[in-house]
Amino acid sequence: MNDILIIGTVALDSIETPFGKVKKALGGSATYASFAASFFSKSALISVIGNDFPKEYIELLKKRNIDLNGLKITGKTFHWDGFYEYDMNEAKTRKTELNSLEHFKVEVPEKYKKIKYVFLANIDPEQQLETLRQMNKPYFVVMDTMNFWINNKKKSLIDAIKKVDVLLLNDGEARQLFSTINLVNAANQALRLGPKAVIIKKGEHGALLFTKNKHFNAPGYPLENIKDPTGCGDSFGGAFIGYLAKTKDLSERNFRKAIVYGSVVASHNAEDFGLNRLKHLTMSDIEKRYKEFQDIREF
Amino acid sequence: MNDILIIGTVALDSIETPFGKVKKALGGSATYASFAASFFSKSALISVIGNDFPKEYIELLKKRNIDLNGLKITGKTFHWDGFYEYDMNEAKTRKTELNSLEHFKVEVPEKYKKIKYVFLANIDPEQQLETLRQMNKPYFVVMDTMNFWINNKKKSLIDAIKKVDVLLLNDGEARQLFSTINLVNAANQALRLGPKAVIIKKGEHGALLFTKNKHFNAPGYPLENIKDPTGCGDSFGGAFIGYLAKTKDLSERNFRKAIVYGSVVASHNAEDFGLNRLKHLTMSDIEKRYKEFQDIREF
Repeated sequence: MNDILIIGTVALDSIETPFGKVKKALGGSATYASFAASFFSKSALISVIGNDFPKEYIELLKKRNIDLNGLKITGKTFHWDGFYEYDMNEAKTRKTELNSLEHFKVEVPEKYKKIKYVFLANIDPEQQLETLRQMNKPYFVVMDTMNFWINNKKKSLIDAIKKVDVLLLNDGEARQLFSTINLVNAANQALRLGPKAVIIKKGEHGALLFTKNKHFNAPGYPLENIKDPTGCGDSFGGAFIGYLAKTKDLSERNFRKAIVYGSVVASHNAEDFGLNRLKHLTMSDIEKRYKEFQDIREF
Repeated sequence: MNDILIIGTVALDSIETPFGKVKKALGGSATYASFAASFFSKSALISVIGNDFPKEYIELLKKRNIDLNGLKITGKTFHWDGFYEYDMNEAKTRKTELNSLEHFKVEVPEKYKKIKYVFLANIDPEQQLETLRQMNKPYFVVMDTMNFWINNKKKSLIDAIKKVDVLLLNDGEARQLFSTINLVNAANQALRLGPKAVIIKKGEHGALLFTKNKHFNAPGYPLENIKDPTGCGDSFGGAFIGYLAKTKDLSERNFRKAIVYGSVVASHNAEDFGLNRLKHLTMSDIEKRYKEFQDIREF
């Protein structure tokens, strides 16, 4: 039985940063999320790829014990071509070829419908909503999004936010979506829409958790060498829900731990291109850095 | 006997933010720093004001038990006229009237020369260096600066950095001074110049402490209502050295506590214009928020 259902994109990413480049590397929000979750829990993935999708990438996902029965194959794989300049907080897009993603409609396989933990990774909010419609009352839903959907499908996005337990977004998106410079104000507006918790990801500055009366401030990890930040937000989310599904404890206190595990996996992810770092990451690397996160915030 | 010598500016500030404005309010780096330090220690101030300086402002400083024997009076007081837009991280200058600050030369009164803790608050780095030349071997020196000196007196600034124990600067300044986007890299370059510790202030994102082999990440405080960030960096620095001079413990562990006290006082400072909040702040307000800083960090 799978612990988590993850819906999002599986992509081929061509990425250039000041420290190198890769062509058509394995990427996509559901890929990073399920990879990161796999250190803690077993997930099933719903997405679409094309006939051009390399077999070795399928093997990589299978090796992490990710259930691929929800992965459709049709046409050509979604391809993102982008770059980062020295300010690695901001991805710039050269080209987006949606390909088979363009007409993708979620169909949740029957045996997935009873999964209790659901991660709606970054994808069209209409597909996020459709996933929830098809599921049997999951009891814990986390969603992520990106500025593209704020600009183009704000109404559906707000509808989706109303149906989830935890909303993840980055600081720029929070400010944009709620028309305020102040993150506390943005988080309070988000909480009023329905989620029990809002997590604002701030890249090198860490992450903030807002619940009704509590606030948690997770530190950023001091990385001297960042090679490629692609997928950091997705792996943060995957590790977050992965840890929660493993521990089956949805208290605010455990959310804090899950956020630090999310930060640990995301910080590793930035150290190499694409999935290169996560491919070789071990639970002992994760636990070691978790302890470092404790040490750097102790006073 | 005074615990701390503080040299910096005493100014009249005209400030506009989206939440209101003030005309010729009491301001300046040494003012905020000595006010903040006064919650923990007794300080002596070295600066210059003009004949137009309001008596009530002198009274305000005296009430905090700040020694003003090093305060020269000549000509007209330094006046800064600036504003903030919705992104309150960045002050914009309308007008800077240096007035009596223009030809100010530090003269450390004889009885101040033996003070052991020195805070070189933001002012011309040549005056920071001159202060150290006149002092009898102080054993703990903290310095702050701003982008204006990076642009205009970089050589003197670097010379000053070589002579201090702790360098404070904000993230933008750290990136600019060391020509790198990466704060870990910037901090390592700063440490190589001589200071035992570098503290990078990141406004709402908290502060980072770098020492040779250790890193500390202090949280930002989730303020929903920021009225005026003027003087936050200066009050951070003042409370930091004030706490250290009070506890006489210069371990890395105690630096961490001092940074949190600095963050506590700075976060209060942003809640009202000029010194309006600090004027009414109590030690019990400070200790209460210090506990909140612990709570938002626990995992």
